[in-house]
Amino acid sequence: MISAKTKLCAVIGDPVEHSLSPQIHNAAFRDSGLDFTYVAFHVRAGDIESAIRGIRALGIRGLSVTIPHKVAIIPYLDGIDEIAGNIGSINTVVNNDGHLTGCSTDGPGALRALQAGACDLAGQTVLLLGSGGAARAIAFSLATISPPPQLTILGVEPDELSSLERDLSDRTPLSVVAFPYSEQTLDEASENSGLIINATPVGMTPNVGSSPFPEELIRAEHTVFDIVYTPFETKLLKDAKAAGARVIPGIGMFVHQAAIQFELWTGQPAPLDVMTGTVKEALL
Amino acid sequence: MISAKTKLCAVIGDPVEHSLSPQIHNAAFRDSGLDFTYVAFHVRAGDIESAIRGIRALGIRGLSVTIPHKVAIIPYLDGIDEIAGNIGSINTVVNNDGHLTGCSTDGPGALRALQAGACDLAGQTVLLLGSGGAARAIAFSLATISPPPQLTILGVEPDELSSLERDLSDRTPLSVVAFPYSEQTLDEASENSGLIINATPVGMTPNVGSSPFPEELIRAEHTVFDIVYTPFETKLLKDAKAAGARVIPGIGMFVHQAAIQFELWTGQPAPLDVMTGTVKEALL
Repeated sequence: MISAKTKLCAVIGDPVEHSLSPQIHNAAFRDSGLDFTYVAFHVRAGDIESAIRGIRALGIRGLSVTIPHKVAIIPYLDGIDEIAGNIGSINTVVNNDGHLTGCSTDGPGALRALQAGACDLAGQTVLLLGSGGAARAIAFSLATISPPPQLTILGVEPDELSSLERDLSDRTPLSVVAFPYSEQTLDEASENSGLIINATPVGMTPNVGSSPFPEELIRAEHTVFDIVYTPFETKLLKDAKAAGARVIPGIGMFVHQAAIQFELWTGQPAPLDVMTGTVKEALL
Repeated sequence: MISAKTKLCAVIGDPVEHSLSPQIHNAAFRDSGLDFTYVAFHVRAGDIESAIRGIRALGIRGLSVTIPHKVAIIPYLDGIDEIAGNIGSINTVVNNDGHLTGCSTDGPGALRALQAGACDLAGQTVLLLGSGGAARAIAFSLATISPPPQLTILGVEPDELSSLERDLSDRTPLSVVAFPYSEQTLDEASENSGLIINATPVGMTPNVGSSPFPEELIRAEHTVFDIVYTPFETKLLKDAKAAGARVIPGIGMFVHQAAIQFELWTGQPAPLDVMTGTVKEALL
């Protein structure tokens, strides 16, 4: 029951109408008995400065930040965390009495999903498919939180790919190589990698017949993590299952990035089961 | 269940922690099956401009406005309604795609409470006690919506009282006189008035033994309306009942001003019973 003491969090984006964040976070607040509520604000790109002034003046406790604001919002914040600084984008704001800190929970959420899926990150060589925002978030989180002995990145955007490789090499001790995505580079990289991460949108609804990774290259020793969670089981994950590999579905990352937001806003552990159940129910 | 499509309304004030508006409006939204929710924002006086920029940028549908913003907010709005213009303060904002209109629903709410209490406003001479914001709102609403043949105002703040008398005389066709509040003026005014309205805080918790109107002056022909609603039955209302007068408790004004806000934001009739029940439950 909302009262005048209830704290508010919100997602801002454009578009924002299809965000599941209100359902997930409200279910989590309710289950935890916290006097918080969560709504969505449709904020246009030109209104981001006014929106942030409003967040401070209205005392809104926290934000989830989605497209197109993840980069543009940064100049209006009072600070950002290390991973967000390296990625150059945020997905979370925490408001401490008007002091706004930007954080990125996508990468750390991906790592938690891997750990929850019993993937031993230490000692795993990693093949990362993609060089966009999600790939950047995961690569810098790996480098910061749990650096693998070797990271190979394959991508189709040469400039984005070389920036990511250079930034990782310059700013972290990670051993990283990047190549254009091709039959040959896929073949070589899969040989040498224990963990394969799809950080591209390939395989997402409606293109459920596509996969970013050839099924004949998947081995039983691989762990395969797909950030795509619509459908829950992508072609890549089906192929990996069929090959006897360990699979980690994208819904885990989606739930864990929200769980870390919940922890940042409330200071309490997030009810993961309730959040996962809410996402599944909403997407079925 | 809040989703990304849920519209938000809010009360802004300082302090705001004890506002009942979230309970009342959320109960009304729920009962009406409307996809709206309502929270409270603690906004400091210096932050009102930023708060209003935020309201526009975030697309918040409507505001209840309370102390200390009811006057200071006006320069930041795009327009105000006629009664609000005369009163010089607002208690409601309606946001139509970024165009913000300020309204005053306190006075119209008082008139609806009187009508709901079967008080025939036409032909009633009125004695109004008080010259503050609430008295101003009620006086201009009477003048605009249902002008009595005669309005007598008694007050204890000479400047405020003469401003109110002058503004009413200058801007409305109402026949109005104002006198300092005293035993003699009370005596004379009660003789000539059918409807007695207390628009002062006298009698409010914890001063429940006080009344702004001597019990020996109340007659069975009077209708007595008290804007104070804590306690539900003030000493003035008890005295009026004992004298056989018709009584109109303050909770009616409180509920009706909120009901008019609800109508302005949603375009639908407000569920008065649910709103009244929520207020009573919260105050018991």
